[in-house]
Amino acid sequence: MPLFRDGKRILRRSGYVVATLARQLAVKSRLVAVFTGAVLGLIAGAGSLSQASAQGDPLPSWNDTAAKRTIIEFVDRTTTSGGPDFVPPAERIATFDNDGTLWCEQPVYFQLAFAIDQVKALAPKHPEWKTQQPFKALLEKDMKGVGAAGKTGLLQIMAATHTGMTTDEFSRSVRDWLATAKHPRFNRPFDSLVYQPMLELLAYLRANGFKTFIVSGGGIEFMRPWMEKTYGIPPEQVVGSSGVVKFQTGADGKPELIKLAKMEFVDDGPGKPVGINRFIGRRPILAFGNSDGDLQMLQWTVAGRGARLAALLHHTDAEREYAYDRQSKIGKLDKALDEATARGWTVVDMKRDWKAVFPEK
Amino acid sequence: MPLFRDGKRILRRSGYVVATLARQLAVKSRLVAVFTGAVLGLIAGAGSLSQASAQGDPLPSWNDTAAKRTIIEFVDRTTTSGGPDFVPPAERIATFDNDGTLWCEQPVYFQLAFAIDQVKALAPKHPEWKTQQPFKALLEKDMKGVGAAGKTGLLQIMAATHTGMTTDEFSRSVRDWLATAKHPRFNRPFDSLVYQPMLELLAYLRANGFKTFIVSGGGIEFMRPWMEKTYGIPPEQVVGSSGVVKFQTGADGKPELIKLAKMEFVDDGPGKPVGINRFIGRRPILAFGNSDGDLQMLQWTVAGRGARLAALLHHTDAEREYAYDRQSKIGKLDKALDEATARGWTVVDMKRDWKAVFPEK
Repeated sequence: MPLFRDGKRILRRSGYVVATLARQLAVKSRLVAVFTGAVLGLIAGAGSLSQASAQGDPLPSWNDTAAKRTIIEFVDRTTTSGGPDFVPPAERIATFDNDGTLWCEQPVYFQLAFAIDQVKALAPKHPEWKTQQPFKALLEKDMKGVGAAGKTGLLQIMAATHTGMTTDEFSRSVRDWLATAKHPRFNRPFDSLVYQPMLELLAYLRANGFKTFIVSGGGIEFMRPWMEKTYGIPPEQVVGSSGVVKFQTGADGKPELIKLAKMEFVDDGPGKPVGINRFIGRRPILAFGNSDGDLQMLQWTVAGRGARLAALLHHTDAEREYAYDRQSKIGKLDKALDEATARGWTVVDMKRDWKAVFPEK
Repeated sequence: MPLFRDGKRILRRSGYVVATLARQLAVKSRLVAVFTGAVLGLIAGAGSLSQASAQGDPLPSWNDTAAKRTIIEFVDRTTTSGGPDFVPPAERIATFDNDGTLWCEQPVYFQLAFAIDQVKALAPKHPEWKTQQPFKALLEKDMKGVGAAGKTGLLQIMAATHTGMTTDEFSRSVRDWLATAKHPRFNRPFDSLVYQPMLELLAYLRANGFKTFIVSGGGIEFMRPWMEKTYGIPPEQVVGSSGVVKFQTGADGKPELIKLAKMEFVDDGPGKPVGINRFIGRRPILAFGNSDGDLQMLQWTVAGRGARLAALLHHTDAEREYAYDRQSKIGKLDKALDEATARGWTVVDMKRDWKAVFPEK
């Protein structure tokens, strides 16, 4: 059975069901209102950030806790020429999950927020949606109706917004969306809701000869159009889930690549070491995630010889961001948290370890 | 129907049939003998190479013909800051086919030579092969018997030597083979039969801010173990055909990746632009191939906006290497040659355009 691109990942990863759609749309209509406190806290945090930065601290948005010390000590050890844990630059591979690790993933994966907005944007070209579920319900903000369409409905939404177009057209739609859409709670562009401490960590690693990669369950074509600008990570260092793409000659006689409604690869859970092997061909020495979907990537990373660092971001900060773990439908952190505790992996506690969460506006 | 890894590509790409196996094995037993002349020619070429190199020529093994001038002019144009054809470094993506473009592919694809040698190396662990075709025939050098097993037999050989082991074990077997096996005609290690002018081109492009990638029909796991040392191209810049790989916990309790006997992706013909899109996520501005399997990669490359360079290596030198094109079972160059002529792509004539073929021993 062919599976619609990207839809499968979202379903599989979180057990996410259509009820959440309703919540997000509802939250969206409320907009800014509630969280002025959080924004103020953020600005205060950003202030202290600039100060520390001036003093040459490579991770100014990190509090001086064990997590920060572990990271710096690991980088020192692996880059000290002649030391017992030295790693040649070519082998300094660092892999990062994206959703919930580098950017926010609540109240729904941002890729799903994109899909919902795309249905609205594409509606004028699809008059048939006025009478066809789940599109009719979504366009009429009838959340019961969307819910009634269940998983099949969600897959239809993903297929309608992610396939049947060229790769270039899809890239453009992602960029257009990011330029206009706003997060329902923070009222900021989605690609501004990246974690300032993680941006610093990426830059710090690269300054020390590491090559930074994304290894995410998110759609590879959804991530590549913006990650170079936002994270400094070029398309060729982005690994993600993908659908089948077909080469053909377009109506203009030029070759084109068409995105088909058939799943090709799910880069999540046990798929992450597989994706790392397929795309990178080398085992990372550092891996950073935030959910059970990252567990096998961390296991694979630490099973290599020599110095290794496995880290998880624990979302503990409902005021500045969100607090969730074992019970969450999105970004569930349960087994991986147990294993991290048992094996002494680094667990970054957002509330305790980070001075700031998002970059200044 | 599951297809054995890498086998499919070889069959599909060349229409290659088992008869060739016989030829290669026969050639192997004759060894050095015939081609002393070619080797002498090579040494002479290498001498003039060092001379030119001292004068600061970035491509000393290239004769001063149109091909060389086109390449240098293209690099100048795309790297001249402020010029109309300037390309930012991040977008200077150059993709190279491997078999027949960067290293020799005759008398059979080197990966097939590896598979044949592996059957012999693995035979002690497989007593059943003494009575099982096509292994029995291959081990007894009974080429009629191997031929009788047909394509199914070839797929069995590929599966037996490329799957059912961990990715680490397979890498090791490739490295071990390269350290000991010799090419039947040149009596040199296979990874020394790379083209000196192409090594210079790769280095020249990188010195000018290009990022060089392999985009080959060859097996990705077969290529990665040696390409970094040989071409200066790291594993994460190698795109190739692949089989399904599975993450599991090994007998030692450690995670491992097992290579399964199921084809995943054929990076050849229309698969090449698809592979470029999947792995690199950016359209190359320069692509270099040598056969019809590279046609779509070249079409895809030149269809982008701005300055583009599409090039084909034409094997015209039976003395120093091999001469083949439209009728060849391996590396057939027919449609792509017509299109190159029609569209003014660069066709590098090995005999005319190259001073040396292989590096000095």
